[in-house]
Amino acid sequence: MAQQHPDSTVPAVQTAGTAPTGGSLADYLRAQATEFLRALRQHRESGSGGNAAADSVDAARALRRSVRRVSGSLHTFRPLLDPEWSEGLRPELAWVSGTLSMEHACAARLERLLLALHRLSGAAVLPAQAGGPAPQERGTLTVGAAKAGALLDRQLTLARTRAHSSALQALGSSRFHAVADQVAVLASEVPLTAADADLRPLARAAEERLGDAVAALPLVTAGHPYNAEALIHGLSPDPAPHPQDAPWHQVRLLLRLHRYALEVLHGGDGVSDPVDVRLLTAGQALDRHRDASEAAAAASAAARTARIAPATAYALGVLHADQRHEVEAARFAFQQSWQRQALRTP
Amino acid sequence: MAQQHPDSTVPAVQTAGTAPTGGSLADYLRAQATEFLRALRQHRESGSGGNAAADSVDAARALRRSVRRVSGSLHTFRPLLDPEWSEGLRPELAWVSGTLSMEHACAARLERLLLALHRLSGAAVLPAQAGGPAPQERGTLTVGAAKAGALLDRQLTLARTRAHSSALQALGSSRFHAVADQVAVLASEVPLTAADADLRPLARAAEERLGDAVAALPLVTAGHPYNAEALIHGLSPDPAPHPQDAPWHQVRLLLRLHRYALEVLHGGDGVSDPVDVRLLTAGQALDRHRDASEAAAAASAAARTARIAPATAYALGVLHADQRHEVEAARFAFQQSWQRQALRTP
Repeated sequence: MAQQHPDSTVPAVQTAGTAPTGGSLADYLRAQATEFLRALRQHRESGSGGNAAADSVDAARALRRSVRRVSGSLHTFRPLLDPEWSEGLRPELAWVSGTLSMEHACAARLERLLLALHRLSGAAVLPAQAGGPAPQERGTLTVGAAKAGALLDRQLTLARTRAHSSALQALGSSRFHAVADQVAVLASEVPLTAADADLRPLARAAEERLGDAVAALPLVTAGHPYNAEALIHGLSPDPAPHPQDAPWHQVRLLLRLHRYALEVLHGGDGVSDPVDVRLLTAGQALDRHRDASEAAAAASAAARTARIAPATAYALGVLHADQRHEVEAARFAFQQSWQRQALRTP
Repeated sequence: MAQQHPDSTVPAVQTAGTAPTGGSLADYLRAQATEFLRALRQHRESGSGGNAAADSVDAARALRRSVRRVSGSLHTFRPLLDPEWSEGLRPELAWVSGTLSMEHACAARLERLLLALHRLSGAAVLPAQAGGPAPQERGTLTVGAAKAGALLDRQLTLARTRAHSSALQALGSSRFHAVADQVAVLASEVPLTAADADLRPLARAAEERLGDAVAALPLVTAGHPYNAEALIHGLSPDPAPHPQDAPWHQVRLLLRLHRYALEVLHGGDGVSDPVDVRLLTAGQALDRHRDASEAAAAASAAARTARIAPATAYALGVLHADQRHEVEAARFAFQQSWQRQALRTP
């Protein structure tokens, strides 16, 4: 496996050798369900003590991580599982994952934008603090950059607080308790319909969906540095100006499903396997693409705030364009890492 | 010569073979002085007739072209010329060149910025018309982009009109007549002090100054796509935020001097010689660098206009960042073309 890779012509999912069966899927789902229950306990216990906030963040991350893996495996290996059970559980897991990820996304977006404002001001880039840079660091920013930072801080901190409340409310809801009960059952008993079935054709299908989606990306353009594609609708009157991002977001999700399918087949978290390190690199480029795309949209949205000063709007325009170039840079990085994988022969 | 190139280790200026002497320099200066007088006559006669404006633009371009070549040759081959004469003439030629280039620079900058605004709006890029896009084309722009375009149009058209008046005034001045008289003398008699001297050591010195200046550029960084260097002071409070551009502007001038020296040595305009096509490519990247740098500064200056709408300022911020990325892209293009020259062995 270590010499294989996720190119459509040389698959990572081998079809020779001893077949991993439904038993491997059951092991994987049980392990992820157990991890979910552990993280949930950790999250509930993180309410007190010295490291309460950090513990809570860690627990929420572990919850999201296990939910994504259970949900992804249910999707990829759907034909091997009780259809009624899996089709009932998946949307509920998507709701948990979505609700739990909002707070982290707001915090990360604010950090990304404030770091960019400092970088664009030629100021030393400092590690971001919760709530943004300390006032004395703002002295190095122009009035516009400082005001833009304060506006983004206000808007994204508000969004983050709301997301935090929503997450707490969700975790206390009967809807969530029902999901947690279903996952608790999963930790001991996986409703397999075909325990002896070979997992590889389904994993291979997930890999092919990824390959097809990558083949549809404009990778030739992305491989030409400074192609100026990502900012082509930077001032468009279209309220949804970046449909060009959607296929990349889709590849990001399909890459994740492929990675989880490999975890099911081979066990472990895949980090020790060199092929998966390359998959991780490609995935990180797509994460950066998504983060920059959303940060650019947040800068653009902030610029539509009523009664802002022209200097603030100017700084937000520079920031928006900067993040759209990050989008373009991330596509270039993905193209490079993907090409390297395709060139490496087994 | 065709297989040589302007790398410091493999010089374009050979030192073997029959030496080009002061006679070649005299021929070149006479030819350029004659071209200057022809263009000046064309410019004076372009006042009437159907193609008056186009003829005038052509004539001004030809004037600038010959002035740059005379001035550059005076600099490179200074020790072979009457020092009092050449040191008196050079600043006057610089004044003519500067005065005549302003109008063209304003027009080109406006065209570049309006095309960028259209590109950033996802609108079809149309060839620019004098005075900017027609009103019906503005329908595809956002309010901010349209207002930014109108503001830049106003400011740069005003600057262009002023530059036009200055140029006309200069061409009618006694100072200009004195320059024209000196060039008229040059067309028949070049004040050489050493007619038999070998031109190549001086041409070689010009090439070495270029090589040294290129070696001091941050080419390793420039060769990494999306290095984000050019926008690093995009929001800096520093009123002169782009000292990083200066060494590139300097290389642009030294590259031009090197190219003119090769013209003196080998005759002709160098376009037919493959090594000079590569020099032209590198030079075009540096022209683009200069143009984008100045366009970015114009967008930034327009954003400091009093009482503009936030939407206008936002569009100018996006435009500024876009042009700074053009600066970065031009550095990358220069690095690539220079590397290709260095790799090609004789």
